[in-house]
This record gives sequence, structure tokens and C-alpha cells, in this order.
Amino acid sequence: MSDRSLSELGEQGLLPLLQAFCPAEQRGDDAAILTPPAGQQLVVSSDVLVEGIHFSEATTPPAAIGWRAAAANLSDLAAMGATPAGITLALALPSDRRLSWLQQIYQGLDRCLKQYDCPLIGGDLSRSPTATLAVTALGWVNPNRVIRRSTAQVGDWIMATGTHGLSRLGLGHLLGEWTLAEPLRDQAIAAHQAPKPRLDVVPLLARSQPAGTVWRVAGMDSSDGLADAVLQICRASQVGAVIEALPLPATTSFDRDRLIQAALYGGEDFELVLCLSPDWAQALLELLGEQAQVIGQITEKPVVQLRLSDRTEILSLDRGFQHFTTH
Amino acid sequence: MSDRSLSELGEQGLLPLLQAFCPAEQRGDDAAILTPPAGQQLVVSSDVLVEGIHFSEATTPPAAIGWRAAAANLSDLAAMGATPAGITLALALPSDRRLSWLQQIYQGLDRCLKQYDCPLIGGDLSRSPTATLAVTALGWVNPNRVIRRSTAQVGDWIMATGTHGLSRLGLGHLLGEWTLAEPLRDQAIAAHQAPKPRLDVVPLLARSQPAGTVWRVAGMDSSDGLADAVLQICRASQVGAVIEALPLPATTSFDRDRLIQAALYGGEDFELVLCLSPDWAQALLELLGEQAQVIGQITEKPVVQLRLSDRTEILSLDRGFQHFTTH
Repeated sequence: MSDRSLSELGEQGLLPLLQAFCPAEQRGDDAAILTPPAGQQLVVSSDVLVEGIHFSEATTPPAAIGWRAAAANLSDLAAMGATPAGITLALALPSDRRLSWLQQIYQGLDRCLKQYDCPLIGGDLSRSPTATLAVTALGWVNPNRVIRRSTAQVGDWIMATGTHGLSRLGLGHLLGEWTLAEPLRDQAIAAHQAPKPRLDVVPLLARSQPAGTVWRVAGMDSSDGLADAVLQICRASQVGAVIEALPLPATTSFDRDRLIQAALYGGEDFELVLCLSPDWAQALLELLGEQAQVIGQITEKPVVQLRLSDRTEILSLDRGFQHFTTH
Repeated sequence: MSDRSLSELGEQGLLPLLQAFCPAEQRGDDAAILTPPAGQQLVVSSDVLVEGIHFSEATTPPAAIGWRAAAANLSDLAAMGATPAGITLALALPSDRRLSWLQQIYQGLDRCLKQYDCPLIGGDLSRSPTATLAVTALGWVNPNRVIRRSTAQVGDWIMATGTHGLSRLGLGHLLGEWTLAEPLRDQAIAAHQAPKPRLDVVPLLARSQPAGTVWRVAGMDSSDGLADAVLQICRASQVGAVIEALPLPATTSFDRDRLIQAALYGGEDFELVLCLSPDWAQALLELLGEQAQVIGQITEKPVVQLRLSDRTEILSLDRGFQHFTTH
């Protein structure tokens, strides 16, 4: 079969090919239907990804675009303490785009969703001069186990899962900003093209809750960088923080300054940043082992200070990724 | 205050302005949270609207873009028999777009949502060369009262709410394809710029259900035209139909042939097309009065025939609006 363009196929030709990625019971009506598990609340998050802004041919093959679209939204669910219920994908694409390109998007999305047990439940398809993916993720959460940004308290330990900065290092390598050596290169490209949402951490939070305590977990994901996550939590909770360690990738082959910048401001690592009572943080650390690290503490003074052995500075949101500004 | 561009404002400047349209309890976290009413199922529908494809400056002022985005998605909920729970709006916009333009989008969206008691619960905002709105609508439905495309049966009466074709007439007028006279002009432009989703019909379906019968309502909305709705229902239900009347706008000042084309293929009327047992249809007609009309019957032969006094033809999906083809 030749690789036809979307306009050659037409909407009626395309829909059956794409609906094959949806469970059979969700095809054929105007909307999908899901049954809420008893006592659970619904969590909803929407994201839009634009070609040339959030991804480009140079750095992201179509299967990776699909994977990343799913992963970023599943990460928003993890950030709330939810488990996935379903995802919708609304696509707007140039009509000369090839069917194989579109199928690879769906294959990447499908691979990520299957890994996290999340069905694709619907979507939309339209023409557009600019390739755009709009994803809405739906999840269920026990109302007594929600993760909020606004509940951090003075004395909480700040924990970060995984490492930070790898995605930015991979992006820079793919863009030719720098050249990474193995094994860092493979790790960084994988982190950029196939990030893993930390849904695995959600049940561990419940398992590590100290007996006799009330649920209180402040946190969010680090999709816009580690600095952004700490700053947003502090702003929402009206507290400050001191960061005394950074979860940097283990490498000696890359400039430390740039590693720090990538971890703080690079974004798209899709790890979790959590604020917990010290008891709870310790219990969670025991479950996560090397998969998490204490990076600092919540303080009263409403600023976020970075205090490393070789540098001290005040962090600010202005340095993070801003969608509508040029710096 | 001067009317600044989105890039001058930056994301941190924009977000507070847009979050003002969300209920306070939904601001500030990665995702929104909704509590399912006991025993209800969740209905989810996603749509993408692209500038130059689905709307343009010539035909749709920004407030109407917002209204239409909300109305089209609320109509998808009505098509399933659901009541609205919330809506998310993910926007991708050129950075030189003015703040006033964006605010008018939100005002139009907000006006429509308020009319149908539906909160804006979240969204996303990004840069893009092409203005794009991605909307996801969430609703609740009693699992025993769902409207499906696939449950029409031979002998059912086919009902259409409202009139069909007005939106297409309004669009044609705004595009200069023809010139409408009053009062048709105002009606047609209103139908195009501020369509009304038929959520009012949903509770009337339950009220008109004949005593002792099992729930069975086949239907969908006419967002892609009356012909498309009948054809999709027939395909999903593996039946055919004879259409013997069309719910055309009452006018003598416009060519009948074009009126028929607009009703069948124009789309965006956002009315409901329903297939019901004759008893149920009659009871619903008594509640809806002039707001609905019987247009035909479901038949065994799997084709859709149009049999008017002055024309007979077989309807086909190829004539409808196709997003990826040029005719």
C-alpha cells in the first residue's frame, strides 16, 4: 500500500484506521462513556502540543511525539495522585501529511498508554496549516488522597523522584547545542523522547503514610523544570524553601553549570516534586531507594533559595520556560 | 490599559486573567477535580477548532468563536443524553494576538457555558502560528438513559428538533455567497454565530417515555448536517430510512434548492436527530410543539432515501463536510 496523504484518504477513510486504537465499546458515538469507581473523584487535565514549539522533526520522530503527548498528560494525573481512566487526542494536521506519520503518532501514543493501562477513548481530527495535538487526560482519585500544590508546611522535606535535566540535555544534543558522549547520550535522548510519568509513585505514597497521620501530600510534576515545581508549590502554599541538593544525572563528562541549569529550568523530566513530613519522606525513600532524593526543606520565609556547596542564589519563575515570551 | 499582545504579557501575566473565568476551587493545581453524582456515568467529547478552517475573522467575531466552541461541545453531550459537568479549553495562539481578542473569546465561551450551567474547569495556553481551540466537554448521564447511534429500529419515527440550514445560510451571507433579507438575515447570522445546543431536550426525553417501555433512544446531533446524522444513525443501527419532510426555515425569500442543500449538508445547526417508537415520538412532540418535527421513518432497506413532493434521491455521506478533502 502506498503512503497516501491525509487529503487523499479523506476523513471517512482515516477514521476507521484511527478508531482501531480505541477500545471497541468507545467507537461510533459522539462521545465516550466511562463508569466512575465508587467513591472516586474525577481528575481532568488538558494540554496542547504545537509543531515547531513543543516538538520538531529534528528532535522528535512521530512515534516520540505520540509517546510524549501521552506521557506529559499522564504525568499531570500522577501530579494529582490519580490513576489513569482514559485519554482523548484531538489532532489538527496539514492535509499533505502522510498516513504513515499519523500512524506512528498513534503507535507511540498507544505504546505509552498501554504501559500505564490507560485507554484512548476518543478524539477529533481536523485540517490545519500547523500540526497540533490536544490531549485531555482523565483519572480517578480517592478524595482523601489528593496531591495538592497548596498544602506544603514549614518543616516538610522536599523530595524529587528520578534525576532532573536529562531531557534538556537530550534536546540540546539533538539540536546540536552540544555533543553528548555515551552512555549519557542514549540516556538523555531516551529521557527526551520517551519520558516516564511517575504513576508508580502514587500507590507508594499511600503505602508510606505513617500510621495515625492525616493525609497531606503537597506536590506537582516537574514538567516545567525543578525550579518551577518548587516555586509553584511554595507560592500556592505561601511558604518558602531551601534547596540544598540537586538530583543531577551521574556524569563527569558534562559541564556542571549547564547540568544545574538543565535540572532547574530545562523541564520535561516529568518527575514528581513532593513535600512531606520528615517521617513520611523517610518511609517513602525506603520504598523508592535510588529513585528519589531529599533536595531540601520548606521554610517560612517566602523565597526559594538554592544553597549548594559552590553556589547560593534565589530562584525565580522568570527564568523558567515561558510560552509567550522570547527569552 | 493599552491592548497588549500576548507575548508582551507573557504566560505569567496571562494566566491570572484567564483563570478568573474558572471557579476558584479549580485554580492552582495541575488538573481539575469533579465529584461524580451517584450512579451516573461520565461522558467525554473532544473537538478542535482551527482558524481559517472552522472560523475566520470575516464570519466570526472572537466572542462568537468562544460561544461556538462551547456550544458545539455541549451539543455533543446533549447528543448522548448527558448534562454538562465541565469543559476544558486548550488554546494555541499567535504571539502577536491582542489580549482583547483573547478576552472576547473567553467572554463568549463564558456566556454560553453560564447559560447551560457548565463550569470552565481548566485548560492550557501555548504559542502557535495558527490560532487553534481544543475543547473537551465532560458530562454525566444516567446509564439507563443514554442516547446511542446504534439502537434505531425499523418503524421508528425520525424526529428533528428546530430548523436546519440556517447556520449555513448565515455563513454564506457573511462570506458574500448570497445576500439575505430581513428577518432571515438576523436569524441566520444568530444561528451561525450563537447556535444553541439542545440540552433542553434531554430531560423531555425521559418525561415523554411511554409508561411500561424500556429506554431506547437512537440519535445524535446534526453538527455535520441533517443528512450526515440520519446516515450515521442508519449505518450504526444497520437500518435505512425514508425522509419525507425537511425542517427548513420558514421563508419564501430564498431559493428552495439551496435551502434543501443547506439543511442536508450545511451542518452546524447543532439540533438533535432522534429515532423513537411512534408513541414516544408523539409524546415528545406534544412537549416540544413547534420545536420539533417528524421527518421520516426507519426502514429495513439499508439506504437513506429523500422523498419530497418535488424530488427523490438517495443520500450519501460523500456529500457531507469532509475535513481532509477539497470538495
